[in-house]
Amino acid sequence: MEFRLLAFLLALGGILSCESRFMVYNTSAGIHPTKLNVHLVAHTHDDVGWLKTVDQYYVGSNNSIQGACVQNVLDSMVPALLADKNRKFIYVEQAFFQRWWRDQSEMIQSIVRKLVQSGQLELINGGMCMHDEAVPHYIDMIDQTTLGHWFIKKEFGVTPRIGWQIDPFGHSAVQAYLLGAEVGFDSFFFGRIDYQDRAKRKNEKSLEVVWRGSKSLGSSAQIFAGAFPENYEPPSGFYFEVNDDSPIVQDDISLFDYNVQERVNDFVSAALKQANITRTNHIMWTMGTDFKYQYAHTWFRQLDKLIHYVNLDGRVNALYSTPSIYTDAKYATKRAWPLKIGDYFPYADGANAYWTGYFTSRPALKRYVRVMSGYYLAARQLEFFKGRSSSGPNTDSLADALAIAQHHDAVSGTEKQHVADDYAKRLAIGYAEAEALVASSLACLVESTSPMECGNPTTKFQQCPLMNISYCPPSETILSKGKGLVLVVYNPLGWEREDIVQIPVMMESISVQDSEGGDVESQLIPITNPYLKLRSYHVKAYLGRNAGGAPKYWLVFSVSVPALGFSTYSISHARATAFTAGARSTKSSVYKILPGKNSGISIGQGNLNVAFSAEGKMTHYINGRRKEHVELSYSFYSGSNGTEEDPQKSGAYIFRPNGTFPLSPATETRMTVVHGPIIDEFHQQINSWIYQVSRVYKEKEHVEVEFIIGPIPIDDGIGKEVATQISTSMKTNKTFYTDSNGRDFIERIRDYRTDWNLEVNQLAAGNYYPINLGIFMKDNEKEFSILVDRSVGGSSLSDGQIELMLHRRLLLDDSRGVSEALNETVCVENKCTGLTIQGKYYFRFDPLGEGARWRRSYGQEIYSPLLLAFAEQDENYRKNSWTTSFSGIDSSYDLPENIAILTLQELDGGKALLRLAHLYEMGEDEDLSVLTSVKLEKIFPGKKIGKATEMSLSANQERAEMERKRLVWQVEGEDEDTKVSRGGPVNPAKLVVELAPMEIRTFVIEFDQLDSVSDA
Amino acid sequence: MEFRLLAFLLALGGILSCESRFMVYNTSAGIHPTKLNVHLVAHTHDDVGWLKTVDQYYVGSNNSIQGACVQNVLDSMVPALLADKNRKFIYVEQAFFQRWWRDQSEMIQSIVRKLVQSGQLELINGGMCMHDEAVPHYIDMIDQTTLGHWFIKKEFGVTPRIGWQIDPFGHSAVQAYLLGAEVGFDSFFFGRIDYQDRAKRKNEKSLEVVWRGSKSLGSSAQIFAGAFPENYEPPSGFYFEVNDDSPIVQDDISLFDYNVQERVNDFVSAALKQANITRTNHIMWTMGTDFKYQYAHTWFRQLDKLIHYVNLDGRVNALYSTPSIYTDAKYATKRAWPLKIGDYFPYADGANAYWTGYFTSRPALKRYVRVMSGYYLAARQLEFFKGRSSSGPNTDSLADALAIAQHHDAVSGTEKQHVADDYAKRLAIGYAEAEALVASSLACLVESTSPMECGNPTTKFQQCPLMNISYCPPSETILSKGKGLVLVVYNPLGWEREDIVQIPVMMESISVQDSEGGDVESQLIPITNPYLKLRSYHVKAYLGRNAGGAPKYWLVFSVSVPALGFSTYSISHARATAFTAGARSTKSSVYKILPGKNSGISIGQGNLNVAFSAEGKMTHYINGRRKEHVELSYSFYSGSNGTEEDPQKSGAYIFRPNGTFPLSPATETRMTVVHGPIIDEFHQQINSWIYQVSRVYKEKEHVEVEFIIGPIPIDDGIGKEVATQISTSMKTNKTFYTDSNGRDFIERIRDYRTDWNLEVNQLAAGNYYPINLGIFMKDNEKEFSILVDRSVGGSSLSDGQIELMLHRRLLLDDSRGVSEALNETVCVENKCTGLTIQGKYYFRFDPLGEGARWRRSYGQEIYSPLLLAFAEQDENYRKNSWTTSFSGIDSSYDLPENIAILTLQELDGGKALLRLAHLYEMGEDEDLSVLTSVKLEKIFPGKKIGKATEMSLSANQERAEMERKRLVWQVEGEDEDTKVSRGGPVNPAKLVVELAPMEIRTFVIEFDQLDSVSDA
Repeated sequence: MEFRLLAFLLALGGILSCESRFMVYNTSAGIHPTKLNVHLVAHTHDDVGWLKTVDQYYVGSNNSIQGACVQNVLDSMVPALLADKNRKFIYVEQAFFQRWWRDQSEMIQSIVRKLVQSGQLELINGGMCMHDEAVPHYIDMIDQTTLGHWFIKKEFGVTPRIGWQIDPFGHSAVQAYLLGAEVGFDSFFFGRIDYQDRAKRKNEKSLEVVWRGSKSLGSSAQIFAGAFPENYEPPSGFYFEVNDDSPIVQDDISLFDYNVQERVNDFVSAALKQANITRTNHIMWTMGTDFKYQYAHTWFRQLDKLIHYVNLDGRVNALYSTPSIYTDAKYATKRAWPLKIGDYFPYADGANAYWTGYFTSRPALKRYVRVMSGYYLAARQLEFFKGRSSSGPNTDSLADALAIAQHHDAVSGTEKQHVADDYAKRLAIGYAEAEALVASSLACLVESTSPMECGNPTTKFQQCPLMNISYCPPSETILSKGKGLVLVVYNPLGWEREDIVQIPVMMESISVQDSEGGDVESQLIPITNPYLKLRSYHVKAYLGRNAGGAPKYWLVFSVSVPALGFSTYSISHARATAFTAGARSTKSSVYKILPGKNSGISIGQGNLNVAFSAEGKMTHYINGRRKEHVELSYSFYSGSNGTEEDPQKSGAYIFRPNGTFPLSPATETRMTVVHGPIIDEFHQQINSWIYQVSRVYKEKEHVEVEFIIGPIPIDDGIGKEVATQISTSMKTNKTFYTDSNGRDFIERIRDYRTDWNLEVNQLAAGNYYPINLGIFMKDNEKEFSILVDRSVGGSSLSDGQIELMLHRRLLLDDSRGVSEALNETVCVENKCTGLTIQGKYYFRFDPLGEGARWRRSYGQEIYSPLLLAFAEQDENYRKNSWTTSFSGIDSSYDLPENIAILTLQELDGGKALLRLAHLYEMGEDEDLSVLTSVKLEKIFPGKKIGKATEMSLSANQERAEMERKRLVWQVEGEDEDTKVSRGGPVNPAKLVVELAPMEIRTFVIEFDQLDSVSDA
Repeated sequence: MEFRLLAFLLALGGILSCESRFMVYNTSAGIHPTKLNVHLVAHTHDDVGWLKTVDQYYVGSNNSIQGACVQNVLDSMVPALLADKNRKFIYVEQAFFQRWWRDQSEMIQSIVRKLVQSGQLELINGGMCMHDEAVPHYIDMIDQTTLGHWFIKKEFGVTPRIGWQIDPFGHSAVQAYLLGAEVGFDSFFFGRIDYQDRAKRKNEKSLEVVWRGSKSLGSSAQIFAGAFPENYEPPSGFYFEVNDDSPIVQDDISLFDYNVQERVNDFVSAALKQANITRTNHIMWTMGTDFKYQYAHTWFRQLDKLIHYVNLDGRVNALYSTPSIYTDAKYATKRAWPLKIGDYFPYADGANAYWTGYFTSRPALKRYVRVMSGYYLAARQLEFFKGRSSSGPNTDSLADALAIAQHHDAVSGTEKQHVADDYAKRLAIGYAEAEALVASSLACLVESTSPMECGNPTTKFQQCPLMNISYCPPSETILSKGKGLVLVVYNPLGWEREDIVQIPVMMESISVQDSEGGDVESQLIPITNPYLKLRSYHVKAYLGRNAGGAPKYWLVFSVSVPALGFSTYSISHARATAFTAGARSTKSSVYKILPGKNSGISIGQGNLNVAFSAEGKMTHYINGRRKEHVELSYSFYSGSNGTEEDPQKSGAYIFRPNGTFPLSPATETRMTVVHGPIIDEFHQQINSWIYQVSRVYKEKEHVEVEFIIGPIPIDDGIGKEVATQISTSMKTNKTFYTDSNGRDFIERIRDYRTDWNLEVNQLAAGNYYPINLGIFMKDNEKEFSILVDRSVGGSSLSDGQIELMLHRRLLLDDSRGVSEALNETVCVENKCTGLTIQGKYYFRFDPLGEGARWRRSYGQEIYSPLLLAFAEQDENYRKNSWTTSFSGIDSSYDLPENIAILTLQELDGGKALLRLAHLYEMGEDEDLSVLTSVKLEKIFPGKKIGKATEMSLSANQERAEMERKRLVWQVEGEDEDTKVSRGGPVNPAKLVVELAPMEIRTFVIEFDQLDSVSDA
């Protein structure tokens, strides 16, 4: 009776019980061999800047914009992982992790080290940020990944195994093979692919593939790649952030709303749904999203319960997992996977929602990042030559700023304006320090008799970061008696280089001499009004002061600079030269003409002539071989404000045009023709806010087109996206080629996708692709190539024509989170006008099969322009034992034409990091797409290489070890691996590095002490 | 040189530094003797139900309504306090704390015990909830506080020192003295006082006072009481919950937006602002608000920094504090404080925002709580008599449900509907268990020959919780041959009691006999249609089934019941009685008359006659002494929808009328007059949705008015607040009296406040006060008193008139957070109609100075109605050795008329908790407002009292110890304590307890084992 009463009361429900009900959840489940395994991956996605700046996200300030504090995430992660050794967490963005790490006590650091060692905390992806994949340059992607990977290696001794690009807006071939396979990743996961593609892949269970991103490297650089079924969030109803409204697992029978069975059913049903579109008995749930786990406990408490009760239920097996565990589980199934080649661009998440606007959004920031990228490459070389100082000035903060700027809401242009400003500020601060380093390194080099000796140089070199707005104080001075302007011209490329230098000057008569005192021919080109207006407005806007007296001319002259070295030029007043009297600059002949009032115009006096109609329309490109028809025009797309059927607007992310409108050149505005010994130009005011210069260099066969666009007018209330069309008469059969992050070219076919039967919704937007290096097309006889100076969106919307989107100004937000219209302005004294951009593109015709040579080699020159440094010196500077010419590599050696030095950088302990890249794809050029050798010793004259260790691309492990560990994935329908060309191992005695097409090889070089150096 | 470079770089800013910057903050500050001390009190305010249910708040479910999870708060509090021993936190609501506590591991429990011992975690206020102060009965307030305080005592061995009623909507005298001073609190803090009062107090620095809530107990029950300057939140800009947007202290110089000095300045400026309105150099900042500290770390991290940097700054002294530390600091200043008497009602937070609507909101819930309160008191007595079973059935879950229902968003009526339902559900569950206990206790008592013997009784007593809707299955049966209905009538009061019992019956001819078999006169009153409609609709609505055949009559008869005891009555069919033949019930004479078609109506045949006009309007109250004019009427206020000047709407909290409209009785509807030997009634359909019965009992001199109101029509789109007016011809000079939580009466003067010069904005709403026991007024000759059956709002808006707000139905939300219109409905099969309520009030005239006797003694009867239990028995039941009459106290003893037993409850180990209350205030009654003695041994016949220990009111410490520790606050302008009458210490030999007016004394009684009992 007593017992029955007790049983009755227990049955009545613990609702009346006040006893302790402390629960221990069984979270120990591993992989189950036969059940469906639901891999619960606890993660947070922390944008390195977006709506708030990176620092604001870290400390959790500015929460009125977005409630987000990464410090909370990492702070709360530690006790949450300690509370149960089965719990696991992944962390991705090292920019945040590093900030956090240096805030921690040694105790916490030691705990976290243990969590990393045990695998409870796994650092994956591991770059400073989750870089964008459309608009960054591959060198920036490598650098920012390396920065993060090094830190992880140094602090934890581990190497990330997994690529985790869950948010970027489409996925690139370079990401898959270079930043995936080549950094040693075993797999690569992402969230955003075209909605049509996704639907088909779900249907075919082909979201998970083996991806070969490189035609040249094929299976040797393949990776297991998984697109998520929906996004990178949990299934609906399984969000457990503080205040999230998913139903928590209420397992306290003594309280109301007990719901364990209900939640278990929800879980099983979501799992089975996903299992239906996934191969093998493993599915991954991404348990987290943007800036979640601010109180990690809230997630883990629910995940503990789900694992406990779902496994008690037994229909499926739930486990704490990571992408590594998931990858290994997939691999262990020994399945073959569908093959994926090419890339996942463009990305659309709806019929009228092509994320192709951001290829061009914030063109000024995109250019700034590209300029800084090239500068950083050069500055690291000069830092290496001088010897690195960890206390600065050094390149560290530029490295950091550049790394962060690769984030998929940074250079992508999809951040809020104040955040874009923050990236620019960081770049400016980083640049300032790198500039000081460059100046002091150059000073060392010119003042030292031996390259490796550097005391306290006295020469103060000035540089001109605002040359783009024709502002260069050191070159604009009126030189006093006995003083000359010395210009050091540094060439970061591995080949000797002939190039044209162009600097603004005040004086009319100038002479230029080379380092031996020989006369150099020079030309003076008047600086036209649009440039002077740009100059005065932006100096005021950016420096807060008046620009002062305007320079009158561009002084241009040819220079010749050794590989990784410099030449010195002196510039003086021709009337009263302080130096040896030299030839006076030639003033250009300038003609101003009205449209229609002439008989056609032609520029170019060397290999190339360009012809214009009387109205100023370019008509022909004429070189020694052929005369090609070519026309340039501008148009704008009016940004859609949404339609009744679909409210989608055109915005920072999305390009949704509502009609396209040609912009015809003004008929009443005078055009200017400039002729001179070095450069010919044709200036044209297209309309009141577009100015264009077509430029031809003697000795060069490409046309350089410079444009000034802006402010884009919006008085009509219409956002505009400005494109230029370059039209030829080629028959291109819908086909064109665009680069992947500045490296491999991928064939694009208009209104067509390789992977699925495209339903065409957006004729323009749906055919846009990101362009970093260039775009080309070909017919049976020739190739027509365009190279760009920054990332832009482009396409070929009709045969024979290429279109580039150059600038965008929009008035509405496109509802992808940024909640701001892309309406950039530049302000002076609180008066703001729309952003004006200035830029260039370059085009050229080549015979079929020969275009790559120009694209690859001139592409390198665009990326790595000559670095100019100015110093006023008295007339005797050359006598004062200055080194006026220098090469960092053996002066008898140039790198092979198809090989570039991507990185030359000093590491701790005097080691060097060297990255060599083959610039050509397999089959791209008859002569240059070949296995090529580089002699390492030639790159380090005066040093003795003790050891050259080949590393993974991010230099965080030995290449051999990486290869040993690499998982070998099988491709459906493929029995045998096809042979891929790769350079062989490096013989330590010979130190010759072979590079196959598209191969990049990374080395850590250790030097033996040389007696002569140890004296220094 | 090296050094200068280093210094330069450091000056340049750590922005470039990557070194560890782990910070240790100095949070050790205590009180500074001369500086302004800013006491930072980290707290969370966790409503025990409001927008979500208490369980939903605890586990954090239903977050779509409100993001709130108390489990998070308490979980995260532990590590946050462990992280720095200077950090402190207070926790208040024990309903949550107890839920959390039983979820914890022993390790966590042990840690938390240490945190409590060290004072880092202080449990203050300590009741199950932060009860409302307007509408709960003082016995409920005591009970719910006791429940919490016991738990704290039991688990932690501590007694809360501080009252913390920060959110209730106005503050009561009973709270200050009874639930403040008498539970041993040293101070009492709160947030909400009238905005005009607050302004004046800020100006006069009199937000902090010494409050004497009781006229009778004066300084012996005073407390230091502080109203906050604004609310219970931090100063603007100092909110640090996850995702809050206050600026965090950014003290990392290596990141952007460093703001330490700015935040220190903000802090100092907010502190000085508060210091300007506060006496002494101590101010308190309430660092928290509703459901905050979900991740406690986010607050403490910022508080750490603020303390560190503010104290480095040095202008003010910031410290981690608690209200205890603050109180002690205030006390240590030895200042005298302004005196406060009376209370802080009504509360307004704006000119048109009087929080006086909630005095009546949810009248059905309010009544349910009141009924359960009385039942709980009785059930505990019966539990004591039977002997408590911890495994149940017992009164624990009713205790818990009632405790939670006292929350300031529970019985107050300001919660969402689903939450109100939850409170009701808990009460119903608690009642069901208590009902089983009561039934089994009564069965024990009737079946046992000795009160203390109880085996397994066979009698199944049924009770009728739905008697309010005329539904009582056991009394509605047609008794079969040989069976009779036995009615046990239990009287929870300490005096023998004569009362009228009223039960629904089916039969026309019934006889009633007392326990000795003597005939009892009885009357049958027809159950009129409105009651039958209520019955059938609500049985369907609440029980989900048809009510079955309707009873025809109310059977009424007089009963006489001993103190704390019962009498037994048998009810049988008079035609074929199974029992001794008895007198047949008298059927009432019933007259139906049309308004105007008669010559006036009169009811009452005993001491009291009530006269009505021919139209049905009550005109006179006539007793042996006098004939008093009295009129009853109804009106409604139309709820304001907001005006152009002020959008404030009338709603659950706020009474903002937009005009008042009389409701005149229908002229065409027949009225019913009922005459009988025991009761006379006058029934009147006031309009289609108001029905009123005026009832007079033979032998009683009060009029009972029963009303059925509803559904309030809203077809016109107008919310309505229904009031009744009881008008006399008294000259009351704007003055009336309302009780404080059913205990002390407080003088109210229309359009006047004692504490400040009232600016009158709302003629009705601004004069409303909460009524729990009653309201009265007087003139030179007499008193007119009204008693109520639940808490309602009421006033005297014109001289001689009293108004009660009886029901409210509103269509808009009044913007105080609940975000729901107060529009209660009752649904049957998804068809919902507005809530109908049924209730009573009672009025009576008394000679001046004699009204208290009725108010106090009849008030006790209303609160503690007779408890009825039914059993069918055969005719021999009396022969089967049933105990037909019982008294729990010595049968020769009645408690003094002015003393009540508030609590008689069995404690662990067979001890008893006994609370005795003097019912009269000082000077209230010539005879009864005197020091009175109670003999404890008479209360426990058959037991031997071993020890009677006087305790604090919440019984968590000995009274003597409490008195010893009590801080003695000084009042401005008062040199000497005025003498207050208090009962003296209890002589352990005599065990006589003296009670002075309004005194409540609490004892834990330990019994010696008696041989005769130990046999049982």
